[in-house]
Amino acid sequence: MKTKPDFLLLDGAAAEPLYRQIYTRFRGAIADGLLLPDARIPSARALALELGLARGTVEAAYSLLVAEGYVETRGQAGTVVTPALARHAATAATTASSPAAPAARARPAAASASSASALASLNRPFQMGLPALDAFPRKVWARLAARAIRATQPDDMVCPPYRGQPALRAAIATYLNLSRGIVCSPSQVFITSGYRNTLELITRALLQPGDGVWVEDPGFPATTELLKHAGMKLAPVAVDAEGLVVSHGVATAPRARAAVVTPAHQCPLCVSLSLPRRLALLDWAAQADAWIVEDDYDGEYRYASRPLPALQSLDRDGRVLYAGTFSKVLFPAVRLAYLVVPPAQVPRFEQVSQTFGSGGPILTQTIVSDFMNEGHFARHIQRMRRLYAERRQIAAQGLDAVLGKHLRIDPQPGGMHLILRMKGRHTDRALAERMRQDGMAALALSERTVLPHAASALLLGFTNIDTPQRARELGKRILRLL
Amino acid sequence: MKTKPDFLLLDGAAAEPLYRQIYTRFRGAIADGLLLPDARIPSARALALELGLARGTVEAAYSLLVAEGYVETRGQAGTVVTPALARHAATAATTASSPAAPAARARPAAASASSASALASLNRPFQMGLPALDAFPRKVWARLAARAIRATQPDDMVCPPYRGQPALRAAIATYLNLSRGIVCSPSQVFITSGYRNTLELITRALLQPGDGVWVEDPGFPATTELLKHAGMKLAPVAVDAEGLVVSHGVATAPRARAAVVTPAHQCPLCVSLSLPRRLALLDWAAQADAWIVEDDYDGEYRYASRPLPALQSLDRDGRVLYAGTFSKVLFPAVRLAYLVVPPAQVPRFEQVSQTFGSGGPILTQTIVSDFMNEGHFARHIQRMRRLYAERRQIAAQGLDAVLGKHLRIDPQPGGMHLILRMKGRHTDRALAERMRQDGMAALALSERTVLPHAASALLLGFTNIDTPQRARELGKRILRLL
Repeated sequence: MKTKPDFLLLDGAAAEPLYRQIYTRFRGAIADGLLLPDARIPSARALALELGLARGTVEAAYSLLVAEGYVETRGQAGTVVTPALARHAATAATTASSPAAPAARARPAAASASSASALASLNRPFQMGLPALDAFPRKVWARLAARAIRATQPDDMVCPPYRGQPALRAAIATYLNLSRGIVCSPSQVFITSGYRNTLELITRALLQPGDGVWVEDPGFPATTELLKHAGMKLAPVAVDAEGLVVSHGVATAPRARAAVVTPAHQCPLCVSLSLPRRLALLDWAAQADAWIVEDDYDGEYRYASRPLPALQSLDRDGRVLYAGTFSKVLFPAVRLAYLVVPPAQVPRFEQVSQTFGSGGPILTQTIVSDFMNEGHFARHIQRMRRLYAERRQIAAQGLDAVLGKHLRIDPQPGGMHLILRMKGRHTDRALAERMRQDGMAALALSERTVLPHAASALLLGFTNIDTPQRARELGKRILRLL
Repeated sequence: MKTKPDFLLLDGAAAEPLYRQIYTRFRGAIADGLLLPDARIPSARALALELGLARGTVEAAYSLLVAEGYVETRGQAGTVVTPALARHAATAATTASSPAAPAARARPAAASASSASALASLNRPFQMGLPALDAFPRKVWARLAARAIRATQPDDMVCPPYRGQPALRAAIATYLNLSRGIVCSPSQVFITSGYRNTLELITRALLQPGDGVWVEDPGFPATTELLKHAGMKLAPVAVDAEGLVVSHGVATAPRARAAVVTPAHQCPLCVSLSLPRRLALLDWAAQADAWIVEDDYDGEYRYASRPLPALQSLDRDGRVLYAGTFSKVLFPAVRLAYLVVPPAQVPRFEQVSQTFGSGGPILTQTIVSDFMNEGHFARHIQRMRRLYAERRQIAAQGLDAVLGKHLRIDPQPGGMHLILRMKGRHTDRALAERMRQDGMAALALSERTVLPHAASALLLGFTNIDTPQRARELGKRILRLL
């Protein structure tokens, strides 16, 4: 037998035999949920090699684990953690017990608990910001993914360019050019791992802790949280029927260094920033030497007329940073977003994105650029625009039929959620809270507002409501809570 | 015909007919490299729908583009940007010319230029930090990936948990427990998009701008760059044969708030931090109320003896943050790393990782956790440990045979690169610079040092040198530059 492995020495007194130390380590790992039921453990031969021990030592430990029911051998399939532990775990107490009764010690694995909560969050009715997942072309996606994986060469395994893959950046520039009126070259496009990563990149590149930043009020909590945490001083600016009240920002925080806005559909009020306001905002930015972050999270989804061109397309002074994302037009798990910066800022952003690293795995970037270049992306957006127009109507009509006496639904040109104004004595917070306790995903408008005189309304995602029956059913569920 | 699309109005005078505006927009996009040769453009029908125009309008624009050679129709395969533009572009002047000669206007696409540079960086001999890509089990990986894609359900398309997928976190905790002596629960594991993201998360959670941080000297440029950019005050601490000279740090920057160290194989000197130094470092951290970041970037790759247990395994005061990565044991393009935090810090890191978002796409996380849980990961590390021991010897012998008079190769217990000490009058910087000009990926040790009396040595990655012939060949190439 070789010398004792260092890491096992750490575990206890040297007097404890090695096989016993291995046994103890495994037992602990299973009890703590580190090794889940059904997980395969290394073969005795492989582990002995890994630890530099005689195979017999590891086999002795494994025999003990088998004898006590912690693991099971399955012939060719190897040795696995006993599946029965999972069933017992749910009802078993977590108090210590003898090693001969492992089931009682095993705790429900963290993994299954969290998966369940992820599932719950998906299944909650009215979840905001979630596309219609049932309508995503999963087969096309799987085909492109399988092709990308088969085609992977060693050259594709090196560290990807920090700014993102050239093919994806070119596809995004083309798309923005044709669909959003944004004139940009691929060199202005930076790939990020999501909107938060985009915003972080912007603060790193252009802002200093202590800088003032205009944020819309009501606004998007992720934006305010991140900016606050990055040390910015937030200046909440009111929103009315024409979007951000630029004059309010100028009056209250003229020296802010940036403004984060959602011009296409204000988040969460869904109004569009009017042309005079757009021009006023650009004027302020030019005069104050400030930056405008255009968060175009769902600019594609306009139903009443064609999508509005981006604010960026009016920018003559290189002040607008355009933030787009694939979370809403593809799906959130893809973790891919992008940023278009003015040409003069490209070197600065190159430096920051190289220092902090952003982007994402090459595989995802390849799948998305193929999806775009082969026309699936444009087709999918078309289809979703029609589908969301339908689902919006289905949800609005169904809810109005049941709840019309208590709530008034805002007419809106686009977006992915409904706004239901409270009539009478009910407050949005209390109702939203009751709905959440009932398993729904309601948000209250006043929860997203810090300025005085917040309006009282519910914000309800409609993209996954697919039938009039479902809408009425949900309406009745809300009615019972009023 | 419907009303004019807003975004085309932005492009020019309303006097220009719509078909002509579309034509101009496409022509510009092709000339600017936004649309690459061979890229498929939307069908006239799809684009007309998208723009809300009559199909004939778009068809008129397309006819013009076809007539002038910008695009080609390919029957069922649709319409694509003329491939010939690519060949012409390389030699053509970029000066303006008539629209009838598109090839002369087309610039080489940014995409191809960047791909070429990525390729070059891979192919450069002696590239550091790159695993042996030829030896990666690509077929197994592709099989797991294909399976994960086929199994994707709507539930897998929602926003993944910011801390990472439970199954992956559990697999990492088990691996670290068995292989690196780290006792941790999955709840302490945070998935990040790479080492830089890990380090950024740590600075956000535990440090303030202006805080002092010990960094090893010589050290890892990514660490120093990121910390500097995040506003930290760097305190370079000397490294000797026992690793970080803790007493030097205590003498020069006793009040630092953190130390970033590479205990397994100091980066780039490859020495291991001795046990007395480990204990001294932990003592300092406890007394100074400081944090220790253990960057265990290639702790697995030790050839002379078994891998050392991690510094984290000696931590009794919850001061060590353990940073691991899949870049070296899988491949860099996977963009996946992890961080193990002390139990008391979990809530703080949960908050920060939720605010800033980290992690990566669910697909990648699923593939990696399956790769680990099904035993491929442990097997791959085993194989790479043997392979790198061999390749290290092949590279060292081959280079020594040719360059022995001028350079002395350090004996080292592990790591992924060789250290060649300069004998005589040559300086490492001058030689490294000449090697880089010659297409190799040399680094000079003195380039990575800020303290006085830097040693003169070359740092050369050996993991992709697979034969004695290749090693001698490269040795001769260096010899000519001396």
